[in-house]
Amino acid sequence: MQLLPGFRDFYPEDCSLRNYTLSIWREVAARYGFLEYDGPALEPVELYKKKSGGELVGQLFDFVDKGERHVALRPEMTPTLARMVAARERDFKKPLKWFCAPTFFRYEKQQRGRLREFIQLNCDILGDASPAADAELLALVIDVLRGFGLGPQDFVVRLSDRDAWMQFALGKGVPQERVLEFLGLVDKLERTSEAESVRKLADFGIELGAVRAFIANPSLETTKLQGILADLAARGLSDFVQVDLTIVRGLAYYTGLVFEVFDRGGKERALAGGGRYDGLLELMSDGKVKMPALGFGMGDVVLANMLDEIPAAKAMRDAWLAKRRPAEIYVIIADDTRRTEALGLIQTLRNAGLRTDYSLASTKVGKQFQAAETLGAEFAVVVGAEWPSVKVKTLATREERLLPVEGLAAALRA
Amino acid sequence: MQLLPGFRDFYPEDCSLRNYTLSIWREVAARYGFLEYDGPALEPVELYKKKSGGELVGQLFDFVDKGERHVALRPEMTPTLARMVAARERDFKKPLKWFCAPTFFRYEKQQRGRLREFIQLNCDILGDASPAADAELLALVIDVLRGFGLGPQDFVVRLSDRDAWMQFALGKGVPQERVLEFLGLVDKLERTSEAESVRKLADFGIELGAVRAFIANPSLETTKLQGILADLAARGLSDFVQVDLTIVRGLAYYTGLVFEVFDRGGKERALAGGGRYDGLLELMSDGKVKMPALGFGMGDVVLANMLDEIPAAKAMRDAWLAKRRPAEIYVIIADDTRRTEALGLIQTLRNAGLRTDYSLASTKVGKQFQAAETLGAEFAVVVGAEWPSVKVKTLATREERLLPVEGLAAALRA
Repeated sequence: MQLLPGFRDFYPEDCSLRNYTLSIWREVAARYGFLEYDGPALEPVELYKKKSGGELVGQLFDFVDKGERHVALRPEMTPTLARMVAARERDFKKPLKWFCAPTFFRYEKQQRGRLREFIQLNCDILGDASPAADAELLALVIDVLRGFGLGPQDFVVRLSDRDAWMQFALGKGVPQERVLEFLGLVDKLERTSEAESVRKLADFGIELGAVRAFIANPSLETTKLQGILADLAARGLSDFVQVDLTIVRGLAYYTGLVFEVFDRGGKERALAGGGRYDGLLELMSDGKVKMPALGFGMGDVVLANMLDEIPAAKAMRDAWLAKRRPAEIYVIIADDTRRTEALGLIQTLRNAGLRTDYSLASTKVGKQFQAAETLGAEFAVVVGAEWPSVKVKTLATREERLLPVEGLAAALRA
Repeated sequence: MQLLPGFRDFYPEDCSLRNYTLSIWREVAARYGFLEYDGPALEPVELYKKKSGGELVGQLFDFVDKGERHVALRPEMTPTLARMVAARERDFKKPLKWFCAPTFFRYEKQQRGRLREFIQLNCDILGDASPAADAELLALVIDVLRGFGLGPQDFVVRLSDRDAWMQFALGKGVPQERVLEFLGLVDKLERTSEAESVRKLADFGIELGAVRAFIANPSLETTKLQGILADLAARGLSDFVQVDLTIVRGLAYYTGLVFEVFDRGGKERALAGGGRYDGLLELMSDGKVKMPALGFGMGDVVLANMLDEIPAAKAMRDAWLAKRRPAEIYVIIADDTRRTEALGLIQTLRNAGLRTDYSLASTKVGKQFQAAETLGAEFAVVVGAEWPSVKVKTLATREERLLPVEGLAAALRA
């Protein structure tokens, strides 16, 4: 009996690491006033086919269910979000600032940083078309990574503008219906040989030199990027961003701002990516709901790889984990005729909200102390001859006190 | 574009309710020293076919993936847990106390309390065969429900013992290989007509009267239930439990203790159910790992229906939700020439961990105050002519103060 390839078991130590990621994601998103939502893990396959793009459609876990519906495990959140918001658009004040951190499924080739099941933070702002919204979302992606102890020496957000590329293409005479195809070329420029790029661009009547010149010296005054950069500067976040027109993003639904976040070391895949998708709600609602929108996704896999390699981030994570040891208090039953009283005491401590453990089986006192140490308990509470008092040992200092059972929870908290 | 039947969208208000459930589950499980784990949502279908039973196999969302693997969305956790523990059995001290709260998928007929995608708390103790472990798990299921503000007037745990039934059956001459079939009859007794029960029991040479007499007057001294009840009494939890031999549980892998939790009103399906499955790890590991085990599952759907109907539980939930309003602080930009300074201040407040929101667009001060009220903010911070001081309004009391920007986060926390 084996795990499927690309899927993970989360033993308790792995699950703690995942909970750490989720906890920072949720905390920072909440600081920005983002509200959590979620959708189903299974959707009709048409939801993903409806928006053009196609890249993810080839990676779907899709099948026909027992009710003859063609369904798919969700590979991304944006179509679900667009469906949900379009359905109840009038119920919410604009702009909406929503986030979620669900599980996604993609049938991908196995490689470092890519799994078939992963969690991903998704943050979106809907109903605001201004650079102020762009900057708010970028500030959030930066602060989420800062929340893990990462700094400007560790990662950079590369900003680009699809509108600027569209204007470039149209200005060079690329016909409207081939602009997406041209953007696809630009997206792959860094991974394509010079000869092949020259040949493919020639088909559009464009020289590689012109493309490179545009990348090297983008005329920012014609884009919204300038306003976004000024807003981020006001927040003191300029060190985290860099204009880079080589970023285009693969998905067809992006308009305007697009961005990707990379580790400065350049060793990992993108930590996060996103952009504007101002036309998607209209497409998803068959024209009924028009709403500008933008968002980003940040997966857990590349992020976890990176945290492993940055000492400051690792130290922060370890401190978080250390605070969550399995038991605060371990009750040691030194005299088994007192088991009934011990169980009552354990119940009282737990009722008071204290994480309390004990040995289910009668066993030697030494073994029970050992278990207390293994679990990282702060106090061992020894139930024995002193009842209705108990010996309380602070395990870190070996200090021992005799305390009455009455009011013990409060005394241990103090 | 519609949701699939039996699946749910979680708009922010729904997601908060789900997070409330998850939060109580996690908090109480941690109080008992249980560690969180998780597994993949997709498993090879054989994992669910390997253990006999069959009930869930007919409800699988199963399909053949792009790599020709026959896979299924998980309908329950126990097979995954058994696989995980069997694979790394030597790495862990016994007993293991583990919990998880993942999403499950079952293709069920739609009815109240049943959905096709739901979350379920699963708590298991592995490696201890004693009634002390049974009692610890039962105390946990009771305290989880108490954690939601439910009391002995609201729910009851009905305990039964499959071993007692097996002894009964064998004593009446039922052959070993037909005992499971006999247990199936007992499980359905309450939902079967008397005539049919009489007829079916006759096939085993057993009279309905004998079965009823056994249920009415179980000889507890021959079972482990007595020890379990004594342990729960020591914890002061007797009011929450009741022996009821009509409980047998559908799944074939149960041995010994089985139990189900019901609302006292009898209006809902079972809130939770579980029992011992001492033979399952051996079965799943092809005989390599023998480990006694028991566990329970508690779904979110029936629980949420019940919380809606118990005023004390509802009040507790509402208090939890009220503490988590979307923003603590709303920054009002009264003078738009100060937007740069305002953004810097917002960043400082968020860096300090305060949930801070503001209007992305320039808009009238009155509208900004309205937004602050809508979000339930505690303070409105007005950035205007007084810079580098700001007016701080406590929204509940209308009280206003002038505070310097320097050290504002600390002043607002105090």
